[in-house]
Amino acid sequence: MSDIKQVTHVQNVRLSEDGKSVIIIDQTQLPNRVEYVKLHTAKEFYDAIYELKVRGAPAIGICAAYGIYCLAQQIEAKNFDDFYAEFVKQKNYLDSSRPTAVNLSWALERMHRVVLENRNLEIAEILELLGRECRAIHEEDMAMCRKISEYGLTLIKDGDGILTHCNAGPLATSRYGTALGPLFLGKEKGLDFHVFVDETRPLLQGARLTSYELVEAGIDATLICDNMASIVMKNGWVQACLVGCDRIAANGDVANKIGTSGVAVLANYYKIPFYVLGPTSTIDLNCKTGADIKIELRAPEEIKEKWFREPMAPKKVKCYNPAFDVTDHSLITAIVTEKGICRPPFEKSLAELFKK
Amino acid sequence: MSDIKQVTHVQNVRLSEDGKSVIIIDQTQLPNRVEYVKLHTAKEFYDAIYELKVRGAPAIGICAAYGIYCLAQQIEAKNFDDFYAEFVKQKNYLDSSRPTAVNLSWALERMHRVVLENRNLEIAEILELLGRECRAIHEEDMAMCRKISEYGLTLIKDGDGILTHCNAGPLATSRYGTALGPLFLGKEKGLDFHVFVDETRPLLQGARLTSYELVEAGIDATLICDNMASIVMKNGWVQACLVGCDRIAANGDVANKIGTSGVAVLANYYKIPFYVLGPTSTIDLNCKTGADIKIELRAPEEIKEKWFREPMAPKKVKCYNPAFDVTDHSLITAIVTEKGICRPPFEKSLAELFKK
Repeated sequence: MSDIKQVTHVQNVRLSEDGKSVIIIDQTQLPNRVEYVKLHTAKEFYDAIYELKVRGAPAIGICAAYGIYCLAQQIEAKNFDDFYAEFVKQKNYLDSSRPTAVNLSWALERMHRVVLENRNLEIAEILELLGRECRAIHEEDMAMCRKISEYGLTLIKDGDGILTHCNAGPLATSRYGTALGPLFLGKEKGLDFHVFVDETRPLLQGARLTSYELVEAGIDATLICDNMASIVMKNGWVQACLVGCDRIAANGDVANKIGTSGVAVLANYYKIPFYVLGPTSTIDLNCKTGADIKIELRAPEEIKEKWFREPMAPKKVKCYNPAFDVTDHSLITAIVTEKGICRPPFEKSLAELFKK
Repeated sequence: MSDIKQVTHVQNVRLSEDGKSVIIIDQTQLPNRVEYVKLHTAKEFYDAIYELKVRGAPAIGICAAYGIYCLAQQIEAKNFDDFYAEFVKQKNYLDSSRPTAVNLSWALERMHRVVLENRNLEIAEILELLGRECRAIHEEDMAMCRKISEYGLTLIKDGDGILTHCNAGPLATSRYGTALGPLFLGKEKGLDFHVFVDETRPLLQGARLTSYELVEAGIDATLICDNMASIVMKNGWVQACLVGCDRIAANGDVANKIGTSGVAVLANYYKIPFYVLGPTSTIDLNCKTGADIKIELRAPEEIKEKWFREPMAPKKVKCYNPAFDVTDHSLITAIVTEKGICRPPFEKSLAELFKK
């Protein structure tokens, strides 16, 4: 039990005591070193998000909300208009650090609205409200993860083999996580799962983060390369796939870590249920379909050089390195949110969430 | 043109001038260093195959045939029975270095038969016949690769996007290779292809070897992580998949590098033809289905540690590391051999090859 709490109560993103900086676990150093980094300047926040020191859609949102709060306190302005202009500039800068996950712009937009809606107040008062808002975003995320975990747990049973891709655990969120939440919650309740963890190239979030979180919590975990998901499913070892999400379109198309769509195609072929877990803040009804989601392309060096002792491919070869892909809604069994479980047709079930 | 010959005429496996050793390119050092290694003792041959210094089903067969010839010359025996006992011991030792590729045991068995069928001759004469047989195996492979390339080229057209997994090029065979053969042959004839190369974890044969061979030959190549095959296919960039094979069962089930079955499932979903290319020596009619093929399991360190500056996963996490998987015959569009192109039902078309 204490092991699980150690994992689910990890402080991956938090405001410093004085409320002027953000302290994060540098996730690029895991699993070899647990290193905390203090972020204070706009560039430090931007780089931490771009370089994936902080990652996972919900955690990025929390970090950006805290970040814009810290940056707002640094603005030297004599009137609201000057303050607002600088606030928007900083917000847009942070927002440009990663284009695909909607939580980043969602959290920054919530902070933005606080400023806009309180333009008649003193700047000091606006800052206080901003401080409350970012803390609320963080607290809401904890509650959301708990609810998602509870709903998700109803979809799997003791002894199940579970395949997951990338990392949607406590490090990517707060507390239980999203896709991994049902596993931690189930473990607390005495259930056992056998989890197959895709290593998730090129950045190895599965190998470095998910398998770290699972073994620390005492959950049975087996690391595989991404291309082994097919044989593991064929062997009959997987009863459900659980993945997180970075953006969900109105029709249920899901953008998530590169490779997710491949897992979904395999699950469909091997007749294994494929579940997407994430907060409603990930749903973007302005996106009609996955075709509207901008996919972040990253540097070739992440494939050829990063982590390796020496380059693993010739200098001359081109690379295509999308950070995400879109899983077609037709491949998804259910989308699990803090407000309940959505089943197809998603156009209808997702829209209904927002009427509650 | 000269670039292509540099690639297709690489001497990846050859007998030394004096015929007593085998010289191979150490493929584990590519693409950073082109290093040749001389093999002479049984342990050197075993290790070179086990450690994938020489790899690719046909190349392993050639190396093993040359290897057992070198080892046979080292046997000190006064009569045939002593010679034969030692020969079989060495043959079985080499044969145990890798269990999945059939060419290894096929080539060793051809050498074995030469000994058995000439037991009435002097040992010196048997050795001479062994020398001829291993050279014949090598020469036949060159001719086979050329025929496979010609047949394969009829299945693709100028401008096509091609996805390949692992390495079935000149380094894995002799001359053109099998799966990559149509691409080299097509390039010689002035055709252009756009090749997507799966990096092929954990041993990165795609990144290290296939992309090296393709760019050296001036063929347009884009390296991707294995989990990006789905988005590349979804983008409409792939018109055909070409892969090699390590063993083909009588019903058309194909054992090939881990991840091949996943590519086949994706190709099936995205309605892209999936072609398997290999010599008839890869077909094992004694295997009724893929269920009869023994899958080699390799060390967890290949996933967690190999190539990396530091371990990329926690010590405590388990790994599952199969070197191959079996692609169901129902996912295969055609099997291309040196004797022609087999279409479903494979049970019939494969059996017919051996009647020719």
